Amino acid sequence: MKTIAISCGDTNGVGLEILLKMHDCIASICQPLYCIDYLLLQKASQILNISIPKSLSPNLCLSPSAKIPPIDAGQITKESGAYSYASFILACKLCEEGKAYGVATLPIHKKAWNLAGIQELGHTEVLSKRYGKKAIMMLGCEKMFVALYSDHIPLKEVANKIQKDDLFDFFLALHANVHYPKYCVLGLNPHCGDNGIIGTEDFIIKEAIQKANTYFQKELFFLSTPDCAFIPQKREEFKIWIAMYHDIGLATLKALYFEESINVSLDIPILRSSVDHGVAYDIAYQNKADTKSYYNAIAFLVNHQKES
Amino acid sequence: MKTIAISCGDTNGVGLEILLKMHDCIASICQPLYCIDYLLLQKASQILNISIPKSLSPNLCLSPSAKIPPIDAGQITKESGAYSYASFILACKLCEEGKAYGVATLPIHKKAWNLAGIQELGHTEVLSKRYGKKAIMMLGCEKMFVALYSDHIPLKEVANKIQKDDLFDFFLALHANVHYPKYCVLGLNPHCGDNGIIGTEDFIIKEAIQKANTYFQKELFFLSTPDCAFIPQKREEFKIWIAMYHDIGLATLKALYFEESINVSLDIPILRSSVDHGVAYDIAYQNKADTKSYYNAIAFLVNHQKES
Repeated sequence: MKTIAISCGDTNGVGLEILLKMHDCIASICQPLYCIDYLLLQKASQILNISIPKSLSPNLCLSPSAKIPPIDAGQITKESGAYSYASFILACKLCEEGKAYGVATLPIHKKAWNLAGIQELGHTEVLSKRYGKKAIMMLGCEKMFVALYSDHIPLKEVANKIQKDDLFDFFLALHANVHYPKYCVLGLNPHCGDNGIIGTEDFIIKEAIQKANTYFQKELFFLSTPDCAFIPQKREEFKIWIAMYHDIGLATLKALYFEESINVSLDIPILRSSVDHGVAYDIAYQNKADTKSYYNAIAFLVNHQKES
Repeated sequence: MKTIAISCGDTNGVGLEILLKMHDCIASICQPLYCIDYLLLQKASQILNISIPKSLSPNLCLSPSAKIPPIDAGQITKESGAYSYASFILACKLCEEGKAYGVATLPIHKKAWNLAGIQELGHTEVLSKRYGKKAIMMLGCEKMFVALYSDHIPLKEVANKIQKDDLFDFFLALHANVHYPKYCVLGLNPHCGDNGIIGTEDFIIKEAIQKANTYFQKELFFLSTPDCAFIPQKREEFKIWIAMYHDIGLATLKALYFEESINVSLDIPILRSSVDHGVAYDIAYQNKADTKSYYNAIAFLVNHQKES
């Protein structure tokens, strides 16, 4: 079984509840390595009134290099910020050293990191800084993954980002990381520009697709008008979509698979998957947290095959 | 019962099959006035082997001012183009003269119109020219309507269209035409710009919303991040969405309600609804056409209340 490093996330949110509740299930598909002090799990277990599963022995827990924080359910604290950061760094190191196949991250609170004096905004920024490159952001679940060609940029800047060689490189990098038999590529303009009448960027996307298909000597990438990319018939045909910008991909994904989705960082030296929800302070330590996204984040790593 | 004018659409597509199959059902909710020669219905009925419903008497049929075309199933012909155009014009006139509450249009073929020497591209362009203003385009079904603030323009031009007063006018015009108790307004940038870090247009949208809510002295319009606008919880709360651009609204609508959706033209002197599918030449005269969108197009007009 693969070893998966699991960072504990913000200790005042729903992370530890999810970790405890799901251990037996997770342990049936991988060897989890929790980046958390066993003592902190014991505290959480008492507050939640969930006993620590017998198979979750202390030797599955590694101590992050930060002080164990007090648990203040639903509170933003610098202690939980410092601890969740240290937990994530430890998980990254385990992957770098080959001791884990990938890292699954439970949600952190950005403000807590900020209070703890951490410069990076969140997980993604840590990864960019640590590995000197921007990861490919892919969200979704087994039934529908959406990879984002551009992500956190203003909508008006998207059209200028549509460059043939960059797109070609993106297609290659994505395929090297996930190996799907076919990809649905969303165009940029309404009706893919209606032959240039409503914008010309879709010609560039088409050229990049042709270049990639020629390179692979098979039809791997298929262009679709953005508004029809997710109709039922397309969802039977494809399991992965490439969106030119953030919202066109994620709006439909979240409409269809809100609770199941995960967030994956690809094309960097380590493989990372994450739950696609936040700390949910409003239901912290109330035994109400949903565990689907966490399970899917782990399962993605378990089922993933690295480039040969 | 309201009288609804129905334009027959392209006579070589699925329109006449839908018209015949649905007459009894339609006639139970409105008084249909078909803009088609009864003789042509008889021809279609023979080819389809569907008898003309008894209640569909010749006096429900009005002759468009065009020559009755031969039926060439699945063929683009100038005769069908000229006829479907004349049928639509007749339906518009019936509304203008107060003889019908609204017009429901069956699908035309743009190339057939073009062959017939018609200058306008399609229904929408006829309406714009005839009434000297652009209609508000709204698509969807009872469970989800999406009104488009901008429609067939290149994506890179959308950001510049975000102007406070124009948005305010749009909100007022839409509400005057459809009267929903609340509207979900999609922002423009990822995470609505994250407080200006990813674009500033969402500030303008917010201001327009505030101006409209102040004007109506109640909370009618609510801003949502585009990617979370259609999550299940929002779909319980709202039945209508306002999208800043074409694809962000329509991609999810078509993913969820592809076959049921209709296309409505609002804020012009006549009210028009349309099926949201094309002529479907590939299944023309094969008794395979889906009728949900047609029924919904008629039902929308039946249930609609004009501004008092």
